[in-house]
Amino acid sequence: MRVGQATGKSSISTANETSVTVRGLDLANDLIPHVGFSEFYFLLVAGRKPSEIERRLLDATLIAIAEHGMTPSVAAARMTLAAAPEALQGAVAAGILGCGSKVLGTASEAAELLQKGVEASGGDADRLVEVATEAVGRIRAERRLLPGFGHPLHRQGDPRSRSLFDLAQSLGTSGLHCRYATELERAAGKAFGRPMVLNVSCAIPAVLLDVGFPARAMRGIPILARTAGLIAHLVEEMEHPAGFAMAGAAAEAVIYEPGS
Amino acid sequence: MRVGQATGKSSISTANETSVTVRGLDLANDLIPHVGFSEFYFLLVAGRKPSEIERRLLDATLIAIAEHGMTPSVAAARMTLAAAPEALQGAVAAGILGCGSKVLGTASEAAELLQKGVEASGGDADRLVEVATEAVGRIRAERRLLPGFGHPLHRQGDPRSRSLFDLAQSLGTSGLHCRYATELERAAGKAFGRPMVLNVSCAIPAVLLDVGFPARAMRGIPILARTAGLIAHLVEEMEHPAGFAMAGAAAEAVIYEPGS
Amino acid sequence: MRVGQATGKSSISTANETSVTVRGLDLANDLIPHVGFSEFYFLLVAGRKPSEIERRLLDATLIAIAEHGMTPSVAAARMTLAAAPEALQGAVAAGILGCGSKVLGTASEAAELLQKGVEASGGDADRLVEVATEAVGRIRAERRLLPGFGHPLHRQGDPRSRSLFDLAQSLGTSGLHCRYATELERAAGKAFGRPMVLNVSCAIPAVLLDVGFPARAMRGIPILARTAGLIAHLVEEMEHPAGFAMAGAAAEAVIYEPGS
Amino acid sequence: MRVGQATGKSSISTANETSVTVRGLDLANDLIPHVGFSEFYFLLVAGRKPSEIERRLLDATLIAIAEHGMTPSVAAARMTLAAAPEALQGAVAAGILGCGSKVLGTASEAAELLQKGVEASGGDADRLVEVATEAVGRIRAERRLLPGFGHPLHRQGDPRSRSLFDLAQSLGTSGLHCRYATELERAAGKAFGRPMVLNVSCAIPAVLLDVGFPARAMRGIPILARTAGLIAHLVEEMEHPAGFAMAGAAAEAVIYEPGS
Repeated sequence: MRVGQATGKSSISTANETSVTVRGLDLANDLIPHVGFSEFYFLLVAGRKPSEIERRLLDATLIAIAEHGMTPSVAAARMTLAAAPEALQGAVAAGILGCGSKVLGTASEAAELLQKGVEASGGDADRLVEVATEAVGRIRAERRLLPGFGHPLHRQGDPRSRSLFDLAQSLGTSGLHCRYATELERAAGKAFGRPMVLNVSCAIPAVLLDVGFPARAMRGIPILARTAGLIAHLVEEMEHPAGFAMAGAAAEAVIYEPGS
Repeated sequence: MRVGQATGKSSISTANETSVTVRGLDLANDLIPHVGFSEFYFLLVAGRKPSEIERRLLDATLIAIAEHGMTPSVAAARMTLAAAPEALQGAVAAGILGCGSKVLGTASEAAELLQKGVEASGGDADRLVEVATEAVGRIRAERRLLPGFGHPLHRQGDPRSRSLFDLAQSLGTSGLHCRYATELERAAGKAFGRPMVLNVSCAIPAVLLDVGFPARAMRGIPILARTAGLIAHLVEEMEHPAGFAMAGAAAEAVIYEPGS
Repeated sequence: MRVGQATGKSSISTANETSVTVRGLDLANDLIPHVGFSEFYFLLVAGRKPSEIERRLLDATLIAIAEHGMTPSVAAARMTLAAAPEALQGAVAAGILGCGSKVLGTASEAAELLQKGVEASGGDADRLVEVATEAVGRIRAERRLLPGFGHPLHRQGDPRSRSLFDLAQSLGTSGLHCRYATELERAAGKAFGRPMVLNVSCAIPAVLLDVGFPARAMRGIPILARTAGLIAHLVEEMEHPAGFAMAGAAAEAVIYEPGS
Repeated sequence: MRVGQATGKSSISTANETSVTVRGLDLANDLIPHVGFSEFYFLLVAGRKPSEIERRLLDATLIAIAEHGMTPSVAAARMTLAAAPEALQGAVAAGILGCGSKVLGTASEAAELLQKGVEASGGDADRLVEVATEAVGRIRAERRLLPGFGHPLHRQGDPRSRSLFDLAQSLGTSGLHCRYATELERAAGKAFGRPMVLNVSCAIPAVLLDVGFPARAMRGIPILARTAGLIAHLVEEMEHPAGFAMAGAAAEAVIYEPGS
């Protein structure tokens, strides 16, 4: 049974008996000895090598979202390894499955929000305040969440966002997307009557869109980054098991209430 | 219900309202603006920053195994995204689940093989030939596979292995593990009467063990690396769908044969 | 770090040293020796035992969607087992990840469509034709897909839908949801100028909603059902490997085209 | 690139424009209206319909292992849905990934243990005591775990095992595998000096092997069964969220200890 066409195309890589080619470059000779992993990742998704500034911002965003302690996805991964130690890949997968719309997947929605706002301003920085106020008002009226704003722990400000914005500033790349993100934070704080912290999931697309990083690749950033954090936790779990202790505590946090 | 102890310990990271600390360093001030992603990954799993040489070798190994065209795990991931486009994380997870003992998980088994051989030689390079011959003989007698040797496409030599060994040579880090891997290749070729190519899954632990990279973290290398490749393929799939074409061809490769 | 409240509640089951209680019934004495698996599943999700008619319809719907040859999710699962034979659970998970919005997850969207239509008719069967025409017109105007209609293979009619509708008829349970589904098929065929086959993903909610099966549990039906089919394929894969052949054919269906 | 042969074979099912055939039977006419889901599952994996007794035992074993409260895999699944509510299939997959060698995957290892013992006895019931004593002694000497024995909660006896054994007794199918399992429990209790409870993961293969259920399909039983339990928990999670509360408690069970 076929759904749709019979063949597809791909431009990422090809291999023959003596070589592997990635985005037109020879893997063994042009890439392995010469580039860094984040540079290679940029090449993979964007189809070209990054500039030094793009590479630094990509590194910074990956690091910013890679690790944040015992998050739900780390808990799920460590419990899974405790139950199924034969399959490290299964535990990593279980953790990645928690990089969803509520917890780590908001970077791409925030990217869309930022792009729309900058577009609506016609590239005029002076109009961003007005556009931000309108956008917040509309989202509030529709009782939707503002993707990339608010944080349960960092209530007065997300230190990772500040760090990313400072870096963009010092690299001279901070542009309309960063500016609009800041205006959204201000407008949301006013409209909701409490701090609506610009969190790391908004700061990441803000600094990357300002240097032209492809928006469609935004969603991959938290997934690749968290994979690094998950692997570190699973290597730790192999030596200092905590998964079953976490599962036990999780179970005790739920009260059995028959018939409700 | 509890399995085992009530609490666990972790040394990876912690966070409070104003900061995130990773391996004792302040994420926002010490890490985000200053380090690269692979350096950060080394810090996460090893608990300390890598030397410049360790960082370069880690980058090289990650790049060497990140992407190799339409592998089974890429096929599984692209088909999954075609069927469930609402969940990028699910498609990445499906791809990672194929990083198993047969296809991408041999790096850790190869690491063990190399460590045992170097240990058995007592650190004496002159004994490696003999140890390799014995090891290959034993594995052959037990009809087991030699992890990290042989490749269905690169039959005369894996270009990625050569690149990694050349890099280690040029960095001056090539040591007993690389040497022993080469002796295993030679011994296996002789014993099996055909080229037993030292593939990338053996070259990775060879160059990393020679600089003291923790063996327990070896298994994470192909998983982190392939996540980068998987994301690139899934970003491509969103724009140029191939998943259903691949699934159709896969289905046609299987003949229905009732009652067998 | 906490997101939201500190404790939760659950009404599904509890266990102590000597017994396990599921939905208020003693697992060892009241359930294991006396009920069937589908009956037990109904109890688990609905909180009460099904009537004999509900049980028969649930069985029929599970069987209808459990197996359909070499689907994308079966292909992904078999490739994953070939690559990672140490983890059957990983291969099953890879297959389940393909039960998404495009391929197997439309049952719940179709359920919503049917519920809305029946509601809009005010329970008046004579109004269903008109409501169906309006609904199809709206969906067409918005260029959305009609969930549960159309099939790439069963172009003149899905034999599984017919079977489920016949069963509901013979059990005397066929009601407004089945009727409305048929009207939608008719209206869609007229509007699109070609057969818009009422497929199994629409037939399942149609027959189940007519007996009051909880709509929120509809999405679980294809997932539970396909798990059975996936396990059968993976048991077969262990004895008669086809995963790598499928992966090879899938790879060959994609043409490398540099620089596009 | 190809690993192995170009085509595969499958005997499970095929479909054409007007029909679907499963194991030689017409899905729409012979199966959907007439058989139950567990009967269909037996047909899928074994290639033939079960006898009434086989069907009852299969139902009983599926029910016995489907649900046991807030297990690690349920916790992982509920946390995953809380973080990624857009993908029910992802949360089910995360739960299934925890059906591994330590927690739910021991049924197949226990099956092997039982088969070996019954084989070693040459089918002579009188030799089972001796074979069991030897097997326990060997496993103890090698410091391995006895798969299917011991339970953290049901310390004096697993009520589900008792129920399954009673059912096999009443159906007249209890044979050498059940008998050997009991002898193992006795021998292990003596050897270890404390109760080594014959748990549900040993009782399942014991009653099924006595009626000739294929051993290779044993591993699928807990996976299919738990999928039912997982779906029930996820349907509950949608209405009464507990996942973030569980994740929060899990996080608090781990103490941060720098530099260890």
